[in-house]
Amino acid sequence: MKSRDDLYKATCEWLKERGIKIKDIAELSYNLQHPYVPKMTMEDAIESVNSVLKKREVQNAILTGIFLDKAAENKIPDEPLLTRLLTDDPLFGIDEILALSIVNIYGSIGLTNFGYLDKEKPGIINELNKNKKQGKVNTFLDDLIAAIAAAAASRIAHQTKDDEIFDN
Amino acid sequence: MKSRDDLYKATCEWLKERGIKIKDIAELSYNLQHPYVPKMTMEDAIESVNSVLKKREVQNAILTGIFLDKAAENKIPDEPLLTRLLTDDPLFGIDEILALSIVNIYGSIGLTNFGYLDKEKPGIINELNKNKKQGKVNTFLDDLIAAIAAAAASRIAHQTKDDEIFDN
Amino acid sequence: MKSRDDLYKATCEWLKERGIKIKDIAELSYNLQHPYVPKMTMEDAIESVNSVLKKREVQNAILTGIFLDKAAENKIPDEPLLTRLLTDDPLFGIDEILALSIVNIYGSIGLTNFGYLDKEKPGIINELNKNKKQGKVNTFLDDLIAAIAAAAASRIAHQTKDDEIFDN
Amino acid sequence: MKSRDDLYKATCEWLKERGIKIKDIAELSYNLQHPYVPKMTMEDAIESVNSVLKKREVQNAILTGIFLDKAAENKIPDEPLLTRLLTDDPLFGIDEILALSIVNIYGSIGLTNFGYLDKEKPGIINELNKNKKQGKVNTFLDDLIAAIAAAAASRIAHQTKDDEIFDN
Repeated sequence: MKSRDDLYKATCEWLKERGIKIKDIAELSYNLQHPYVPKMTMEDAIESVNSVLKKREVQNAILTGIFLDKAAENKIPDEPLLTRLLTDDPLFGIDEILALSIVNIYGSIGLTNFGYLDKEKPGIINELNKNKKQGKVNTFLDDLIAAIAAAAASRIAHQTKDDEIFDN
Repeated sequence: MKSRDDLYKATCEWLKERGIKIKDIAELSYNLQHPYVPKMTMEDAIESVNSVLKKREVQNAILTGIFLDKAAENKIPDEPLLTRLLTDDPLFGIDEILALSIVNIYGSIGLTNFGYLDKEKPGIINELNKNKKQGKVNTFLDDLIAAIAAAAASRIAHQTKDDEIFDN
Repeated sequence: MKSRDDLYKATCEWLKERGIKIKDIAELSYNLQHPYVPKMTMEDAIESVNSVLKKREVQNAILTGIFLDKAAENKIPDEPLLTRLLTDDPLFGIDEILALSIVNIYGSIGLTNFGYLDKEKPGIINELNKNKKQGKVNTFLDDLIAAIAAAAASRIAHQTKDDEIFDN
Repeated sequence: MKSRDDLYKATCEWLKERGIKIKDIAELSYNLQHPYVPKMTMEDAIESVNSVLKKREVQNAILTGIFLDKAAENKIPDEPLLTRLLTDDPLFGIDEILALSIVNIYGSIGLTNFGYLDKEKPGIINELNKNKKQGKVNTFLDDLIAAIAAAAASRIAHQTKDDEIFDN
């Protein structure tokens, strides 16, 4: 059985292998939350993203989603699933469901941020969408990144408000 | 026991009493979905909003949310709930939870549209937010309207795609 | 603005006023989780319930739900909402939605425990249902109690497993 | 692009290949709902399960979950995901998340039925759990079956109540 720390490291490695750095996600969180929390720094954003990535359910969602993207790239799933994974049909819905499992852990306020990122596609999310045109499959990854960034921003919103530490 | 039709009428009346017309909601749905479904008309949007408003769980969410807004306006809840309802704290979360119960009925794809409307606040949602400054309490109503509009847009997305009728 | 501690105290008082002691909820959590974690004590269960009750979104769900129950007892909501609150129709759904916002904070594994408690109605949940026959309205309260107990049990499950502290 | 009907057939075939017949799921729905709707027949249950299986988001959840189970059986995912899929750790959570996407389509009332089935494991769900001991991986399938059965039972509850047809 891997320890909690090993799973965090594995999750970061899987993300890195797909071209995602912690800093890219933290930038999304920073841009979402900085207007409401002016004293917030990029370091705060990075710390918050790392906290999100240390949660087991978040790790499980990321590992599962990246596996599905890679399996589709390698044409492993049978039809009719394969086509659905390859085309990132907005009605597929399972990618949003995995993302939602991340967002929900920090309360329902993350939903707004997630929906906004998923529609506007700023920064690294836009990069992931461009890669799709070059044969990469990021059906799950783009939603997962939006979810992690939204969750990390929500976590800072919770902490800022009368010193609640979103713990235990 | 009220019939299904009576509940639909009551829901529309409660909305109207709070200044919301079906057309206002349909406009949001139209603006969300028309770019993807060019043949979509405002009539389609209105029909879709009406279909959403005929669902019992949607009616229940709307009636409950409007009651809470009105109760807060009339200072009925005891503290510390009253202040939380009056200030529409983005961390309150219960308004988004009610909205989510509407969005979920049409599958997870509605989440993106809901989050976008909740952040950008176009059209009638912006009006509701202005009213807040004039002593009205719309803590629940603005999220409910965004949810109905997002659900109605999702419903059209589902119907357009290979003729699925999101029925039964 | 109330401090975090004041809100915890207010939440416990509102529960107590409706006949609910922390110990009653902890007993449900203990019975759910003890078979899987033999070293777990009632003190652990009480500590876990208290941790759940210190979360802001949980407090908001409880305050809102209890207000709705009391408002219905006092016949404050207009029809057709009043009848729906008074009869605790299993299709009403809004009570489960509020409960879900509590369960979700501790990850999706709480769903199973919540569903089980909601169907089997052990201990204090059964008491609440008996009270309904004596003119009390517990439409929201019984689901909220099941949700808090399920969340507290899930929290212990998370903590037990390779020392994850479900924090930050 | 497969038509809606082709996807329904494919979904049924994938289920059959994993040892699941429509009748097995319908039996779970019948046992859940018959106590509340005495006139309900096994034919009603079968019809309701089939309606659930015709929904696109349900099909996507089933295809994705079965693919993940089969991939784990064939040791395709890298570690640390593989071990997590093979052991069906109750804290994994992604299986419940996929199941939830099915249950939610019929409103929040399906949650109770899902939680109950997931904890009590009657009928075919128990069979799937026994198979796990013989080298089969049903980490996702048992939750998906519970979700379909719960959704089909909820659908009948909605239809029975004042003739609402849960449509459009």
